[in-house]
Amino acid sequence: MEVIECVPNFSTSDSQIVEQIIEKIKKTSEAFLLDYTFDAYYNRLVVSFVGNKHSVVEAALNASFKAIELIDMRTHKGQHPRIGAVDVVPFIPIKNVTMKECVELAKKFGEKLAEKCDIPVYLYGEAATCPERRDLDWIREGEYEKLAGMIAKPKRKPDYGPAKFNPKAGATITGARKLMAGFNVNLGTSNLKIAKKIAKALHAKKGGFSNVKAMAAFIPEKNITQIGMSIVDFDKTPLYRVFELLKVECARHNVPIIGSEFCGMAPLKALIDVATYYLKVDNLSQDRVLEIAIQNAMEKGDSFE
Amino acid sequence: MEVIECVPNFSTSDSQIVEQIIEKIKKTSEAFLLDYTFDAYYNRLVVSFVGNKHSVVEAALNASFKAIELIDMRTHKGQHPRIGAVDVVPFIPIKNVTMKECVELAKKFGEKLAEKCDIPVYLYGEAATCPERRDLDWIREGEYEKLAGMIAKPKRKPDYGPAKFNPKAGATITGARKLMAGFNVNLGTSNLKIAKKIAKALHAKKGGFSNVKAMAAFIPEKNITQIGMSIVDFDKTPLYRVFELLKVECARHNVPIIGSEFCGMAPLKALIDVATYYLKVDNLSQDRVLEIAIQNAMEKGDSFE
Repeated sequence: MEVIECVPNFSTSDSQIVEQIIEKIKKTSEAFLLDYTFDAYYNRLVVSFVGNKHSVVEAALNASFKAIELIDMRTHKGQHPRIGAVDVVPFIPIKNVTMKECVELAKKFGEKLAEKCDIPVYLYGEAATCPERRDLDWIREGEYEKLAGMIAKPKRKPDYGPAKFNPKAGATITGARKLMAGFNVNLGTSNLKIAKKIAKALHAKKGGFSNVKAMAAFIPEKNITQIGMSIVDFDKTPLYRVFELLKVECARHNVPIIGSEFCGMAPLKALIDVATYYLKVDNLSQDRVLEIAIQNAMEKGDSFE
Repeated sequence: MEVIECVPNFSTSDSQIVEQIIEKIKKTSEAFLLDYTFDAYYNRLVVSFVGNKHSVVEAALNASFKAIELIDMRTHKGQHPRIGAVDVVPFIPIKNVTMKECVELAKKFGEKLAEKCDIPVYLYGEAATCPERRDLDWIREGEYEKLAGMIAKPKRKPDYGPAKFNPKAGATITGARKLMAGFNVNLGTSNLKIAKKIAKALHAKKGGFSNVKAMAAFIPEKNITQIGMSIVDFDKTPLYRVFELLKVECARHNVPIIGSEFCGMAPLKALIDVATYYLKVDNLSQDRVLEIAIQNAMEKGDSFE
């Protein structure tokens, strides 16, 4: 039995709209909602659900149709880069499914969405049709505000749908990628300039870790700043290493770390890496974690009742 | 569907005997072997398996009959306290089963083992028949070597079987307890005296953490010492706190920590506590771990194929 995770990002934090989008996923048969979070400062909804090859595409489409119906990009503001109402829709192989198959799912999703909603769709990550497009940020350059001009450039021709600016919905990016870890760290300062310096120290393109994207945001409700990070390959760049460097940079600027959170689900492997480092554990694999070992043992022996 | 874990400890590190004991668990239908470890310095085999109410007792009995047949306590030496060939057999509630039901399983196991093998059996932990017997160490006082004398005392009358010393098999302790975390830390010193001081600082009865048992052992193959710990309630006394105090005591004696390992399976909750502390994570529950969330979501929706 295959399991694919889908983590669509929608450009809204309006709780009524959120509810209607989530409802569409819940109602898709054989799709299972894991989590969703949204906040005003990013003005963004991040959803996580799993399904099989059929249901995962079905649920992503159902939710996206609703989002495009309800979200108007002409009035959207937020601290997170975005180019569309349905901003980015990655498909992630979890179990008994290959990356190649996830690429096919992204293509299927992109083609259907473009056709049905008449919007431009780009393929990224493992589904990219040219090297630049592997990079989400390259596609998103100039964001929604400059999309009309960008889309007209020949090398930025959409993979599906019209090369024509859709003011209400913007454009959508879909693709396939490895499971990544999202991790946000709250800083005890309201100084966004300092937070940006700290984010820069970690960010791949600014000389930081090659598998890390880091950005700084101001959180008005708490009057603090936050470093939002995506660790694209946490096998190669484990979370503890990123966190320890963050601590170093924070110390340099005399900024306390006041808390942190996983953005979306926490991958077990990332937690194991943390324990392995801080407790100096010699060998700890996923199948040595009790709850996973039980699951594996019982899947093997199906007579267990 | 209920899941009970059983973690029997046998007094052997003879690989041929180990193999035959393990085989008995593997061959019990609806019982699932998770793990087993044994080493010469403790001269002890620790097995972990899961099953339902029926199969968990069945497998524990099958393995114990074989152990009693093959192990001779008259020639047994080891650094871990023990009173019998089948030293201790705890039943641990994991899923859809109460502690009370696990107490019943322990009693069933103990009664059958005593009857079939004609050996003294004590009930401990939640299954104890008087307050002193809740404590494994109280029952094991004087170990195998003094068992003949101990067993004759009225307040040490076995719960099952004859109040008579069995030289070949010794006695067995069985019971029910909460899931605990076993954690061993290797110290870069061969000085057992120092290791014992460090263990003492952590050990409940010596003024350490009320939920921690700690002992020191010498590992001749590596010429180092090891602190072996059982954290009996890792919700109340989280692993990071124990480890941080261990670091403090090691620093005091100028002893480096050179590695560590979970003894048996690592409980997910213990790993979460570690990440929560070292990464300052605000809220991370088991159901926010991707692999567990997927498992839960799919168990709820049984149409997933």
